[in-house]
Amino acid sequence: MMSKMTVLNGEDIESLLTVPMAIDAVEQAYLEKSRGQASTWPIVCHDFITGEADLDIKSGNLDGLGFYGLKVVSWFGANPDKGLPALYGTSLLFDLKTGAPKALLNAGPITHFRTGAAGAIGAKYLARPDSKVLTMAGSGALAPYLIACTLYLMPQIEQVCLVNPHNAAQKAASVLPAVTEEVKKLLSDSGKALTAKIEASDIETAVKASDIILTATPAREPFLRAEWVRPGTHISCVGADMSGKQEIESKIFRTAKAFADDEAQCLSVGECEIPHKDGSLSAIAAEIGDVIAGTKPGRTGADEITVFDSTGIALQDIASAAALLNAAEKSGRGSRIEL
Amino acid sequence: MMSKMTVLNGEDIESLLTVPMAIDAVEQAYLEKSRGQASTWPIVCHDFITGEADLDIKSGNLDGLGFYGLKVVSWFGANPDKGLPALYGTSLLFDLKTGAPKALLNAGPITHFRTGAAGAIGAKYLARPDSKVLTMAGSGALAPYLIACTLYLMPQIEQVCLVNPHNAAQKAASVLPAVTEEVKKLLSDSGKALTAKIEASDIETAVKASDIILTATPAREPFLRAEWVRPGTHISCVGADMSGKQEIESKIFRTAKAFADDEAQCLSVGECEIPHKDGSLSAIAAEIGDVIAGTKPGRTGADEITVFDSTGIALQDIASAAALLNAAEKSGRGSRIEL
Repeated sequence: MMSKMTVLNGEDIESLLTVPMAIDAVEQAYLEKSRGQASTWPIVCHDFITGEADLDIKSGNLDGLGFYGLKVVSWFGANPDKGLPALYGTSLLFDLKTGAPKALLNAGPITHFRTGAAGAIGAKYLARPDSKVLTMAGSGALAPYLIACTLYLMPQIEQVCLVNPHNAAQKAASVLPAVTEEVKKLLSDSGKALTAKIEASDIETAVKASDIILTATPAREPFLRAEWVRPGTHISCVGADMSGKQEIESKIFRTAKAFADDEAQCLSVGECEIPHKDGSLSAIAAEIGDVIAGTKPGRTGADEITVFDSTGIALQDIASAAALLNAAEKSGRGSRIEL
Repeated sequence: MMSKMTVLNGEDIESLLTVPMAIDAVEQAYLEKSRGQASTWPIVCHDFITGEADLDIKSGNLDGLGFYGLKVVSWFGANPDKGLPALYGTSLLFDLKTGAPKALLNAGPITHFRTGAAGAIGAKYLARPDSKVLTMAGSGALAPYLIACTLYLMPQIEQVCLVNPHNAAQKAASVLPAVTEEVKKLLSDSGKALTAKIEASDIETAVKASDIILTATPAREPFLRAEWVRPGTHISCVGADMSGKQEIESKIFRTAKAFADDEAQCLSVGECEIPHKDGSLSAIAAEIGDVIAGTKPGRTGADEITVFDSTGIALQDIASAAALLNAAEKSGRGSRIEL
């Protein structure tokens, strides 16, 4: 007996997935995890050649959506020289009631959206409601998604400072037009206009003026100094997803309140890893899902510094894939196969 | 950028896969493992509801074939009541040089073929060359594949005793015509005729007359008694793939030589688990790949009892999937998608 499956390729997903879909999916994933109706399974990691090619397989189940699934992310550093993408993401979605395979998806664009949504959800629940200035530290592929998702959730933001922490203002200035266009498109696809001003800046000036900071870099040495961070700032860190990575100074955690997407994962491979090991961070205050569910407090004062450590969990991908499958069934987009 | 992938569904695989293809693939997988050119990655297991629904994800890389991959096997015990298969198997194959996804396969029929091939390869390398009588203990879905693969590799076998260890001869007799037809078809698809006589039997009579025994049952209490096993017998056990399963009496291992597909896996979840724990089995003699490679001895005398514990490793599935992808590209069978 064969199973009917839906295939959603890169173009299908670019056409179907929107900022609010990704935000709703990721928020639901965090919430179900908090309610104990979802679980992540052990992550499989393999180094083909250390520093040149590696892979991970993340998997889990989301009871409320009725799906389980997995995502294989393969990174081959030499691919761009061959005209190929360095990262390939491939997801499978299965019916939780029967085990039947339901969908095969190109997880590349999903990863951008769900990571942007994660950083933005951190800001929505932990930043001060009167936040006006946002720093985007990192000007790579994730930057437009993080900016667009945060502006979507926090339309009160008036100014975005785009920063490339390692190449001062030049690099950020050179990609500014492209990033701005992409943010505009992402917002307009979701029925919103870009009202905030996006400008290139240097890291110190930007951070000193900011209410919210989003970091998405592959840094292994922290670039964000504690003395630049104003009281009341929120920081969402999405760059650290592997032991040894660190974007913000450990010192920040001596006074900041730390929140995690997954406590154990953040302490072992996230932004919290090194501060926890060096004693700057004694404990994570809560998982973000508990804050969303209202079972644990988030920010408790306007002067508090909050940090959301988003390492990326399978449930974000499964929830996004489930929303996409639903949208594809409604619109007829994607292709159907018999497996 | 999108990737071209091949989709091979259940019908494609039934049409493309043959006994010799599966045997060659599995033998190559064992050999590459022995040469250190392949590795299996940690297995992900999840119980949805213990005893009612579970899943495992097995993955690994085969350097010589240029692929890595994974297989998700989901078991939902209540499915047959809904007219659905209890087991779903789904495989993904990736290019080892670039990480690009290459194929999606229905792994159900592959699992039957590669498991049949495994038991037969155990017999080829470990049974006495003058073996004439074969017992097939277990009359489920795997029985025709185990019989056909073994007869393909050992055409000197004259008689096959089909046994259902739990329901005496009746049950085996009732499925005998269907099993015989399927064996005939599998052999004829591979250009061979069925020359051996297949008969239903009871377990004690069969084992006492046999040179080779294949076991493929979900037994948790051993049904094969040590006193029935003649000196010089070879036993390939494929049923035990989970802690607590056992098909043959521990006592057998006090005198038998034990071989494994993967030593660590056989000691933790295979037929070797319980005999090792209860002290009947002190050590595994070799992995089958080392016997195939000639780096470790197999059978060393006509009176020796040999046991091959086949727990099933990802490399068997990856090698079979790679052979299928190759055959599909040559024949044009299967469908092509852009992911």
